[in-house]
Amino acid sequence: MSSSARHWYFNQRPAGDIDDQTLVLREEPLPPLKDGEFLVRAVYMSLDATNRVWLSDWDIYMEPVHLGDRMRGFVVGEVVKSLNSNYAAGDLVAGLSSWSDYIIDNGAAMQKLPPIPGLSLADAFGILTVAGPTALVGLMEIGKPKPGDTVLVTAAAGAVGMLVGQIAKIHGCRTIGIAGGAEKCGWLRELGYDAVVDYKNENVVERLRALAPDGVDVLFENVGGEVLDAGLTVMKDFGRVVICGLISTYNASGPVPGPYMFRNVIMRRLTIQGFVILDYLDRYPEYQMQLAGWMQQGKLKYRLHVVDGLENAVDALKLLYSGGNQGKLMVRIGDEPR
Amino acid sequence: MSSSARHWYFNQRPAGDIDDQTLVLREEPLPPLKDGEFLVRAVYMSLDATNRVWLSDWDIYMEPVHLGDRMRGFVVGEVVKSLNSNYAAGDLVAGLSSWSDYIIDNGAAMQKLPPIPGLSLADAFGILTVAGPTALVGLMEIGKPKPGDTVLVTAAAGAVGMLVGQIAKIHGCRTIGIAGGAEKCGWLRELGYDAVVDYKNENVVERLRALAPDGVDVLFENVGGEVLDAGLTVMKDFGRVVICGLISTYNASGPVPGPYMFRNVIMRRLTIQGFVILDYLDRYPEYQMQLAGWMQQGKLKYRLHVVDGLENAVDALKLLYSGGNQGKLMVRIGDEPR
Repeated sequence: MSSSARHWYFNQRPAGDIDDQTLVLREEPLPPLKDGEFLVRAVYMSLDATNRVWLSDWDIYMEPVHLGDRMRGFVVGEVVKSLNSNYAAGDLVAGLSSWSDYIIDNGAAMQKLPPIPGLSLADAFGILTVAGPTALVGLMEIGKPKPGDTVLVTAAAGAVGMLVGQIAKIHGCRTIGIAGGAEKCGWLRELGYDAVVDYKNENVVERLRALAPDGVDVLFENVGGEVLDAGLTVMKDFGRVVICGLISTYNASGPVPGPYMFRNVIMRRLTIQGFVILDYLDRYPEYQMQLAGWMQQGKLKYRLHVVDGLENAVDALKLLYSGGNQGKLMVRIGDEPR
Repeated sequence: MSSSARHWYFNQRPAGDIDDQTLVLREEPLPPLKDGEFLVRAVYMSLDATNRVWLSDWDIYMEPVHLGDRMRGFVVGEVVKSLNSNYAAGDLVAGLSSWSDYIIDNGAAMQKLPPIPGLSLADAFGILTVAGPTALVGLMEIGKPKPGDTVLVTAAAGAVGMLVGQIAKIHGCRTIGIAGGAEKCGWLRELGYDAVVDYKNENVVERLRALAPDGVDVLFENVGGEVLDAGLTVMKDFGRVVICGLISTYNASGPVPGPYMFRNVIMRRLTIQGFVILDYLDRYPEYQMQLAGWMQQGKLKYRLHVVDGLENAVDALKLLYSGGNQGKLMVRIGDEPR
């Protein structure tokens, strides 16, 4: 049992990209547990594009991480000591907590994670915590594609994008993914994307026009900027644009222009809708059952990009904004329980 | 009976603002009527922000006006000669036709306009042809406000905006209008707007925050640019943004950045939806009956800004983009039938 814990603290607001002063790792003694509390040994932590948003001075969709706070993140771990009768040593717990190797909680942030037969802890946590529900809600509740629709997904090799294309295929849609580089694009074809556009090596608008001459029904947007503009350019009349993320804009040091093809909201009579998965927590059991079912049946392929060591969390997070990750990015903080 | 007609032709695509080379007026002999045709003496023509869009090289929502074509516009007039058994001299006809003082049609573009008791031709044409249905569809079908909602309207002293605020009030909403200058703002208060922001003399975001500290439920957007950004800044979570027009961007000579607060689509989980009134023509009878009823009962106030003379149509159109009009802008081409 550790007598100290390491935590990442929000040290300095980044002007643009996250740098070595943004978050700092500190080791501190673990205080004694109070009644109702339990101590968690962290195992995995999810890294998500929105982490950067929490560090901004924007008016965001939830309380930001304040300077001096521990960095926030989705964590799964094992209870190692408990003064809470609902939680016992050995229980798996997960929730929106902090970038730490040991966490004291009382059930407010972390709750028991029911084991899912046939899925490893990494797979269950990596796919079912953020990426999977985000893909499912964004595509099905917001995008509402009909069978036969053409669905375009940006950052298609990312944690959410890799799933959206497959869920769209399950629902009878035609899928086009945009990603950067031959390796990612090749992998998207393996995942079953009907067509892939390599934004680093192809003219995206031209390729999209060739691939979808009648236009795109549903755009699932994770990126923003030029990629969003390309998508807006090829939308079909009355198309739906799901704004899941705008990762290309999160590190901006100044005002970020919206899409230059914004006029297509009128010209193509589009509906653009944003969402935040935290608004859908009450439906998680349903989503997770659906997703786990597909995973168990081998209908949903995915890659986990696992970086070892809490101390490497910041370097890992940077991968998201450089496109250096492929699939779901997470940090292994400690060994999986046996 | 005239033996010639004057028509405005699309002469040169404007790089930015419309200038004297954009449209040119030419007088031409009237060809003899063919079987099935009728000759219309134009009385009023509607000028609408979207007229500029028709002259752009963008991929717009309908066939553009091509170089060399007669300029397109909504016109009402009187049949003065007919070789069509469904149309007789003296009939009033209206439709999407051309900027002309005499028009030959066969019923394809212009159809009979049923007289509306208690409304002058100018009022009926000015309000029921474009502005009224646009306000009604945009607010009620797209914006879907609930009683008690705060509805923000930009270009609130324009043809559509002046009606949106009043329709929102009829439906039990609280209304805030944005317009430029004390005169327009004073008039908006007369129309019943609960609060008015003068974007020329006030800090729009600060005023909106003071007027709607809990945020705006429905933004009815006619302008784009900085005004749209101000609106997006003060939206409530899950608010709805109706994109009716983006007039501030229509004269741009280069790429136009979308709203800098586009990220609020996610942060506030907004739905942004564009529409074009031409998609709703089949529901016009219902809309016009509703609007005419309110007009006859004095529930809908409005101003018509009528410019005399077809030859002044281009100068009149420029008023829309400079904010020089107040209320519904139209051109009187000929005398009303007695």
